[in-house]
Amino acid sequence: MTDLTHSHLYQEIHQQPQVLARLLDEGKESIQALANAIQERQISHVVIAARGTSDNAGRYAKYLLGAVNHLPVGLATPSLFSVYEQPPTFGNALVLGISQSGKSPDIVSVLAEAQRQGALTATLTNFPGSNLGKVADYVIDLRAGEEKAVAATKTYTSELAAIALLSSALCGDACITNALETIPEKVAATLKLHTQIAQVAERYRYMQTCVTIGRGYNYATAFELSLKLKELTYTVVEPYSSADFMHGPLALIEHGFPVIVIAPSGRLLPEMKTFIHTLKVREAEVIVISDDAEALSIARVPLALPEGVPEWLSPLTAIVPGQLFAMYLAHAKDYDPDHPRGLLKVTETR
Amino acid sequence: MTDLTHSHLYQEIHQQPQVLARLLDEGKESIQALANAIQERQISHVVIAARGTSDNAGRYAKYLLGAVNHLPVGLATPSLFSVYEQPPTFGNALVLGISQSGKSPDIVSVLAEAQRQGALTATLTNFPGSNLGKVADYVIDLRAGEEKAVAATKTYTSELAAIALLSSALCGDACITNALETIPEKVAATLKLHTQIAQVAERYRYMQTCVTIGRGYNYATAFELSLKLKELTYTVVEPYSSADFMHGPLALIEHGFPVIVIAPSGRLLPEMKTFIHTLKVREAEVIVISDDAEALSIARVPLALPEGVPEWLSPLTAIVPGQLFAMYLAHAKDYDPDHPRGLLKVTETR
Repeated sequence: MTDLTHSHLYQEIHQQPQVLARLLDEGKESIQALANAIQERQISHVVIAARGTSDNAGRYAKYLLGAVNHLPVGLATPSLFSVYEQPPTFGNALVLGISQSGKSPDIVSVLAEAQRQGALTATLTNFPGSNLGKVADYVIDLRAGEEKAVAATKTYTSELAAIALLSSALCGDACITNALETIPEKVAATLKLHTQIAQVAERYRYMQTCVTIGRGYNYATAFELSLKLKELTYTVVEPYSSADFMHGPLALIEHGFPVIVIAPSGRLLPEMKTFIHTLKVREAEVIVISDDAEALSIARVPLALPEGVPEWLSPLTAIVPGQLFAMYLAHAKDYDPDHPRGLLKVTETR
Repeated sequence: MTDLTHSHLYQEIHQQPQVLARLLDEGKESIQALANAIQERQISHVVIAARGTSDNAGRYAKYLLGAVNHLPVGLATPSLFSVYEQPPTFGNALVLGISQSGKSPDIVSVLAEAQRQGALTATLTNFPGSNLGKVADYVIDLRAGEEKAVAATKTYTSELAAIALLSSALCGDACITNALETIPEKVAATLKLHTQIAQVAERYRYMQTCVTIGRGYNYATAFELSLKLKELTYTVVEPYSSADFMHGPLALIEHGFPVIVIAPSGRLLPEMKTFIHTLKVREAEVIVISDDAEALSIARVPLALPEGVPEWLSPLTAIVPGQLFAMYLAHAKDYDPDHPRGLLKVTETR
């Protein structure tokens, strides 16, 4: 068996505190400039174009910019542009492309059309000189350093941090942003779970399917955890909001069915606790990712997050146990963590 | 074993041609009135609030109203209203609630807030006198008759037909709507697959997971087929657009992994054929739902749709083999098709 600590994935997961600290320090200015443009042009709504991991960062933006900044956010349907050639009218929107590589032609085509219509365009990318960078009025460089593992980790949390910075910049003095400054150390604290998770992963060596559950800000976390497990461990994993799960899929649950619930402190915690009890009555196997002692105490496998992270920033720490779990489960199943079968780092779809 | 033909589910699936014919006949007037209001108020975008099966009808609306009527459509995030109490500003939107029962409190709360803000509101529901009907300026009665099976079938296709009618009414003389009139007979023709599908279902008695793939208008079909399989057969099934599937989940595919591809004629067909070949190289087991002879010929299990249905209406026929497959697979696994474990017909979430 290879030494996991030498893998790109292990190293990139563990680089996250320093990558986030750098973005919070060096990225502020370019994000403030975008926030100013949004305010000067009195932007009415946001359209996000992204795929895969970056689409999950878009899900976070949908909740955060909606709840804190009262900006309606829609996720673009790239095929309306590239296949049906019937782009919607953007009106007074900010059109935001999110892509690690900045290369996917479908995302570039959405922003190019937005520019043609005169809409405000921006991108979050690790490659500011990419095609996507060229069609954006405002380019936010993630500054994450090269990401060599196919499964994205540090660029995901960088995208979340850039979105959190944008929300704070739009909010101005009304928002307390000190919490954002503590995120690198909170992520570092979360990474200490790695010894526990390396052990826990053994238990799931022969798990064939599972469900991940999150709601509100952490709806994104459920999707991203699900994607990491699929990419790295080839497990069939489906993400859900707890509310949607009650409308049908609850029927799946039987004795031992594994469910990973993301339930950090905040407005949704009471509902998530009720949901965990519903799962337990149906004899599901429940893994809980939370900073709440009671939520952790009712789990079969508790994964404790550091305390003191406000709900709106919790997706930045809550995904970390999931990244570690997916990596260690891949290792337990003797799969290559850096090169998932059948995948390339840059996927070009139209 | 019980006689499946006596189940509510069997009967409701087979009622679809007459239910659709009734809606196309009797629903036109109320839908035209809504279309007139949309045009008079120069509505700029549409926000849809729905869950479960109705949310899948919302996905169809997102593509159809976008591609044909150039209306940007967003799916609402009810928790921004009910949990975070931070509703976005609707501006000049149509806010459309879709719900069979009209009872789910979270959907009602979105429309109530929209009314408070002075936005145009409408609902598609099988219960016009419900709470949802009371907070809508325009109520479209699905006229589907009581749906007794927990898994929704005839109300789903009714919701699709109402959305197709709305798109045509907005389009006016510019759109050819004769095709819509043929839908009841095309759905009746599709139902003739039931003998073949009853046999095919046996093959999947021990299938534990699968993936459903659709794109564009049939992205909705992939989601709805996935939901039916989960509700009725407790299989873990995940829906994808073929483009999203290439960004990570393709790693799941190995010898014999079952994939159901919805690939009717239209602009996306060439891409779907390429996608099917990609799956075959990786030795997936491919079930194809299509009216195209070549796409069917490369499938392990071909399910042939009637010819002559335009792409924009294809979701109305393309879901029918999926409904039958989910029902017969439930029967093959000796599950009760009318009462999935753990589910009620009306799910109340906030």
